[in-house]
This record gives sequence, C-alpha cells and structure tokens, in this order.
Amino acid sequence: MMDMDDKPKPSQPHWYERYVQPCVAELLGSALFIFIGCLSSVEDAEGTGRLQPALVHGLALGSAVAILADVSGAHLNPAASLSIWLVGGMNITMIIPYWVSQLCGGMIGAGLAKAVTASERFGNASGGAFSGIVADEQIPSVLVGEIVLTTFLLLVVCMGAVNGKTKSPLAPFWVAFTVTAAVLAGGGVSGACMNPARAFGPAVVANYWSYHWVYWVGPLLGALLSGVLVRLLLGDRTTRLLLK
Amino acid sequence: MMDMDDKPKPSQPHWYERYVQPCVAELLGSALFIFIGCLSSVEDAEGTGRLQPALVHGLALGSAVAILADVSGAHLNPAASLSIWLVGGMNITMIIPYWVSQLCGGMIGAGLAKAVTASERFGNASGGAFSGIVADEQIPSVLVGEIVLTTFLLLVVCMGAVNGKTKSPLAPFWVAFTVTAAVLAGGGVSGACMNPARAFGPAVVANYWSYHWVYWVGPLLGALLSGVLVRLLLGDRTTRLLLK
Amino acid sequence: MMDMDDKPKPSQPHWYERYVQPCVAELLGSALFIFIGCLSSVEDAEGTGRLQPALVHGLALGSAVAILADVSGAHLNPAASLSIWLVGGMNITMIIPYWVSQLCGGMIGAGLAKAVTASERFGNASGGAFSGIVADEQIPSVLVGEIVLTTFLLLVVCMGAVNGKTKSPLAPFWVAFTVTAAVLAGGGVSGACMNPARAFGPAVVANYWSYHWVYWVGPLLGALLSGVLVRLLLGDRTTRLLLK
Amino acid sequence: MMDMDDKPKPSQPHWYERYVQPCVAELLGSALFIFIGCLSSVEDAEGTGRLQPALVHGLALGSAVAILADVSGAHLNPAASLSIWLVGGMNITMIIPYWVSQLCGGMIGAGLAKAVTASERFGNASGGAFSGIVADEQIPSVLVGEIVLTTFLLLVVCMGAVNGKTKSPLAPFWVAFTVTAAVLAGGGVSGACMNPARAFGPAVVANYWSYHWVYWVGPLLGALLSGVLVRLLLGDRTTRLLLK
Repeated sequence: MMDMDDKPKPSQPHWYERYVQPCVAELLGSALFIFIGCLSSVEDAEGTGRLQPALVHGLALGSAVAILADVSGAHLNPAASLSIWLVGGMNITMIIPYWVSQLCGGMIGAGLAKAVTASERFGNASGGAFSGIVADEQIPSVLVGEIVLTTFLLLVVCMGAVNGKTKSPLAPFWVAFTVTAAVLAGGGVSGACMNPARAFGPAVVANYWSYHWVYWVGPLLGALLSGVLVRLLLGDRTTRLLLK
Repeated sequence: MMDMDDKPKPSQPHWYERYVQPCVAELLGSALFIFIGCLSSVEDAEGTGRLQPALVHGLALGSAVAILADVSGAHLNPAASLSIWLVGGMNITMIIPYWVSQLCGGMIGAGLAKAVTASERFGNASGGAFSGIVADEQIPSVLVGEIVLTTFLLLVVCMGAVNGKTKSPLAPFWVAFTVTAAVLAGGGVSGACMNPARAFGPAVVANYWSYHWVYWVGPLLGALLSGVLVRLLLGDRTTRLLLK
Repeated sequence: MMDMDDKPKPSQPHWYERYVQPCVAELLGSALFIFIGCLSSVEDAEGTGRLQPALVHGLALGSAVAILADVSGAHLNPAASLSIWLVGGMNITMIIPYWVSQLCGGMIGAGLAKAVTASERFGNASGGAFSGIVADEQIPSVLVGEIVLTTFLLLVVCMGAVNGKTKSPLAPFWVAFTVTAAVLAGGGVSGACMNPARAFGPAVVANYWSYHWVYWVGPLLGALLSGVLVRLLLGDRTTRLLLK
Repeated sequence: MMDMDDKPKPSQPHWYERYVQPCVAELLGSALFIFIGCLSSVEDAEGTGRLQPALVHGLALGSAVAILADVSGAHLNPAASLSIWLVGGMNITMIIPYWVSQLCGGMIGAGLAKAVTASERFGNASGGAFSGIVADEQIPSVLVGEIVLTTFLLLVVCMGAVNGKTKSPLAPFWVAFTVTAAVLAGGGVSGACMNPARAFGPAVVANYWSYHWVYWVGPLLGALLSGVLVRLLLGDRTTRLLLK
C-alpha cells in the first residue's frame, strides 16, 4: 500500500482506523473519481477532443490517490486491489470489503453525474458507460488493449507504491501520467477503462450492459499479468519469488 | 495550514508576520490568481476549448498556493478558509480578515483583467463572471455540481494540507490537478467556480449579479460537507471527533 | 539562487565553478529554451491552438531550470536575474555576465530555430519574435499585461527559490506552471513574453524591432515590482527590510 | 543511473539483480513505452492535434522511467545509454545488453500496437514509424532538429540523473516535460524521435525503412554532444574532466 511518509503511528490503531476507515476512503474516493470521470464523458466539451476525458481521469485519480494513500492505500479500482494483493501489499481479508466499497462508490459517482447533467446528454453518452464495442469482431482488440494498458498502469502501481526498492511518495503522479497517456492513446481502441468499478457504476445507473464483461475480464487479466511480472521478474529481493 | 517543511522558526514571530503578512499574502495571491483566471475567461483563445480556463485556473492556483503556503496557508478562497477552520487548521479570529483579503484580492484581480483587455471582449464575457445560469430550472443541477466539485477540492485541501496523517508538501499539485479536472469536466454544468472570491471579484467589476448567490451557497455548502467528512470519517486520531 | 538540496560542497570551489560555469549554464540553458520556444511559435501545429506555445515554453523552461539550478541558479532571463539580485539571491558582480550570457543564448537559440525551419514559415512568424503590437494604442495594455504577468512569475521565482522560509526543491514546477498559465491566458493580450532574452534573440535573427522596447520595459518593471513586494511585504525576517 | 532514494541495499546483490533484471526492465519498459507511443501515432484522435503524441510520449516515458529507475536506470533509449555511459553513469559491459533489450522491446511494443489497431489505420500511419522525410532536401533540417532536441533531452537525463551535484529524484518529471515540449515544438520538423529504439520497432513491424538511418545518426550525435557538454563544461568536480 502507498505509505507516503514516515510520521510516527500509534502502536495499535483503533479498529475503526484498521477496518472501517479504509473502506470509507475507498467508497468516497471511488465515488468522487467516477463522478468526475462520468461527467467528463457525458459533457464532452467542444474543442477539447479526447484530451478532456484523458486529463480528467488522470488528474482526478492522481489527486484522489494522493490524499487517501495513507488511509486505505487508495486503490479505487478492483483490478488494482487484485494486483496489490498479488504482490503482497494488502491482506486477503480486506479484498472483498474493498471491492464492495469500490463498486458502491462507482454507483454513487455515476448517480451523482446523472443528477447534474441534462437527461438527453446523459442518455446519448450512455451515462459515461463504455459503449465502444458494437460487434463481436471488436472483442479481441479491445481485450488485448485493456490487458496491455491495465498491465502498464498496475505495474506503475505495484512498482511505485508496493515494491520496497522502487516505491516513492511520487507514485500518485505516475498513476496520473499513465492514466492520461492510456486514455489519450488507447481511448479509441478500447476506451482505456482499466477499472471494473469505473465500468460498473455507469452501467448500473444507465442500465447499459452490452459487452460489459469485457471491462471485467480485461482489467483483471491485466492485474494478474502485472502481479506475475513483479513477483517473478521485476520485484526486489523481498517481493520476488525466484532467484533471490 | 500548509506547512511545507520543517525549517526552524524564531520562537516568537513579529506581530507583522503573525497578523498582517498572512492577509497581505491572501490579498496578493487572490489578486494574481483571479486576474489570470478572468483573463483566460475573457480571452478564450481559438483552438483551446475548455482546456484554456481549466489549465489556467489549475496551474496558476497551484503555483500561487505553493509559494504562499508557508506565509498564510494560501487559502485564496473563502470556502477553503471555512473548511480549513472546521478541521482545525486555522484560528477563528483570522477568518474575517482572510475573507476580506480574498474578496479585495478578487476585485483587484478582476479590475486588472479589465484594464488589459478590449472592452468589447470584456463585456461579452461578463468580465469572467459566472454567467451560465439563465433560468431557475438550472439552479438545482448547478448547485449540486458546485457542492460536489467543491467537496472534492476541499477534501484535497483538508486531507493534503491539514490532516496530520496525510498532509504532504506535494499538496499544491493535488489542488492544481483537482481544479483542472473539475473545470474540464464540470465547466459546462456549473462553471466549476468552487470559490466565492473568484465569483465576487468579476461580479463587482462587470456589475453582473444574476444568480450570484448560487456561487456563495454552493461552495460554502461544499466546504461544510468536506469539513464534516474529515471530522467524522476520514481524519486521523487527532482530527477525527469520533471512534478514536 | 536555487539551491535544491544539501549535498556537501567542497570548502572552496574552483574558479571555473564559481565564475565561468554559471555563465556557460545560463548561455546553454537560454539557447535550448529559446530554440524550442521559437520553434513552437514558428511551427504552430494544427489543432493545438495556443496550448502549443504555452506548454512548450512552460515545460521546457521547467526542465532547463531544474537541471541547471544547482549550477547557476538557472535564471535564463535578464528580468529574473534583476529580481533575484533585488531580493538578495545573487552577487551584483555577476549580473552583467549573466545578462550577456542570456542574450547570447537567445541569439543562438533563435538562430538554431531558423536553421531547422522552412524560411517561408520562419518569415511569417517573424522567427518567433513578439509581433503582436501593430499600433501605439496597444502599448498601455501590453505594458500592463507584461508587468502583471512578469510580477507573478518573478514572485514565484523569488518566493520559491530565494526567500528562505518558502523556498523548495519543487520551484521548477511552479515556474513551469506559471509560464504555461501566463501564455495561455495572456498570450492574446501581450504575447506573455516576461523575458527580454526571449524577445531579443529572435528580434536579432529575424531583424524585427517594432516596439521591441516594450518587451524590455515591461518585464524589467515587473522584476522591480516583484523585488519590492518581496523585500517590503512577503519576505521572511531575513529577506524583509521592514517590521522585523 | 537514476538512484532515487537511499534505502539500504544488500551488500552483494544476486547476479540476477545485477545482470539480468536490468535487461528485463529495459525490455519491458521499452515495450510498454513504444506500444503506447505507436498507438498514439496510429490512432491520432480527432480534436487533439499534436498534443496527443506529445503528451502520450512524455507522460508514458515519465512514468516508465520513474518505476524502473531503481532497477535498471530506466534508459529505455539506446542514445540515452550512450550518453549515460559517456558521463560515467554505467559500466561499458552493459551497453550491448541494454541496446539489445531496448530494440527487442521496441519490436514487441510496435507489434502489440499492430495487434490492437485496425490494419488500414495502422498502414496509413506506417505503424507509428517516422515517415516525415520524403526528399533528400529535408535531411539537413531533420538531422539538426534531432541533434538539438536529443541534446536537450539527454542533458536533462545526464544532469538530472547522473551528475552528482544536480541529480534529483524528480528527474522523471524533467524527462517527461522535455519529451512533451520537444514533440510539440519539433514534431513538425523532424518528428522529434530522439530514440533509435522508438524508430526501429515500428520500422521492423511496418517494414518501413526510408531514411531510417537519420533516426539513428541524429539521436546518437545528440548523445555524443550532450556527453561532451557534461564532461567538459557542465559537470561537477567528479564528472568534469577539465578545470577541477
């Protein structure tokens, strides 16, 4: 998990801080990030092209990660929680609570985006849900796109915030940079979702489910792949399983 | 308040540094930020779309916050002062002086923007005042938009610069990131003001007052909400009021 | 001067490091920054609007400042050297050598830009020189624009890199942020030059001198104003001249 | 090499960490960077102009450098390895393995980009290869452009990540800033490649070889020039060869 400084901590934190507060932070952070992300997809301001969703998703995720990193690790993404657990950055007992919090946050965020936008505009954009796939032929390239982009993002997360030798308080920047680059470059290929909670929230609110499974399978395979790469090849002596 | 490093301080600072200099910094910082913000709204350069005001407001606020953080905390926003006071980051006696300084800075900044732009162009843009609301039906979505976006921004401020466990010298970046994302995503919904001084300055200079109250009520409710979230749910053992 | 870390320094550096290397760094840094700046003005890529020069000038200056800060302070701007001297950040004997180096760098940079661009395109853009003023009536607003924008930029430089209480290794970011915001917001008003070396280099190479003096007077008055603000109002106990 | 913090290291690392892991990191980092770079060139989203490739290359390289800096130094560019070796930042025995890893990474990245994009679109963009030169007359300006831009970039790398007096954990930012500015300003002149692996990968995959040699000669001459500038003029007492 992202431990951004070395301020002294009380020897035994309150159970609220150990079990409940992290879930509150995941829910609230996911809600704010997914609210602003869906808003940017629905609004689609003139003259900004794909820079709008790219910068909004990258910058908003960067700042949400930065302020919540010391509370919950600021995964804000079920795929991130999976890979962070794979590389040893969180306890398995917290995975289900984190996932539930992230998905609830996604629904709250998408609901808030619906509340503030004109219903016609919201409908046209499927409420910010991923609607790029219209035919089965697109599935392979979308799936490969999601897998590679998510692998990049979660390598950044695992190396920048979990792996001891490479982690740094600057990790929220690299998350922001990677998300912005991925949406700019890959938005036209797969939508560059990389996050099942970002897909699930607006899917529920707009009731849009075509090919929704792709945005679970792709990111989760990317999480698996990034976890394996860190555990077998890139991790430090503590994280790596082989050749140490 | 944003305390960005641990350089030694004299045991008892001069009264000027304790009471007057912070107000000077708030006035000057608000004037520069609101000057450049109004300028970007009035100029509206070709080919930049909403990226222009989004980046200008985010980047200029980020650098103004960074250089003044150790002088006054660099609130530069009456709503920020309210939420910082709510979470224990400033003394109540300084709230009114800060608010007055910020509002005067806003008027100076908007006046300077008027001085350097062509009067026709200045008039067309209402001098950078928020003129997006033209009918009562828009009020609910603008109000909800301002509340949610301000809550996000001020959570970033309170968690990134006041709450002991999560504060960091990188906070000016997260402020810049959040403002840029909020204007990009929410500019079409509510204008993404989030700051009564930013609304008040050009309103005075351009004498434009339609629905001006919305840009006080929305941000101040967001300040209240972010303060409550930190005090009850997200804060550390010192900041949190419950379950400690 | 920007002293970005506290690595041990040899008790008595070689004369080369004290007198010659800083000038070499100013010359080389100015040449690279002004090369890429003029290039962005001459090229003016489709679909990027004013974002192109704004980001190019801001980002290139940020990285040049960052890598040369520990060598020469990385002023790269005669106006910056003036205000840094005013607030006590450099020795008066180095001002003339720095100015000469910066102006030579500007000519080299503008010459390189001429070498790599098509001559027609170079001519149309006056080689990246500031050609926005075509009539005397524009002078007041351009002059006020340059003064206020330069004051903002040099307050960032003096507070972020010289004034003891507020200086930080993050200063190159705030320089980059301020330049980007200033060009985006103020490019249409005054060109947002803020730097006589940036104006002088392409003026020599393209032999374009209309209203050139404005880009010396404006930035130097801004330097004076920012120096006075820091010395009288914003500086810490050591930098401030009054009330300490 | 980029040594970003001072965590304790085991007295004698495993041979895997000394010889194999750096090559794995170079290969994987180059593959991800060049995948996303080629994707941005092939996709070329509407309404983003040259900002798309500029931001994608800059931001993706910045985050790849940041997470791999402590593993391999994160050169991800044969020209960078050359200049880093010239200024004393790596052992000569590792140059060939690094170059091979970077070029293989380039081919893998370009191949993945081909796998996820429509073949017509991939063909039109020559798979992200550099296809700006169509006549011999362009060679001088492209070559000078590549040399100057690469010199800037590799001065940033050598001063920001190798030279003791100026190196800093913030170096990945300056790399990102310089690449973004270089592509924005110089993309229309030379393509702003600055990296033979970025040129070679898509050249192989798209089998596009016109004037390919320019993208080796230009960046490698820039590497030589930046190495010479640091060794003779800008380096600290340890790095500099003269006047110490």
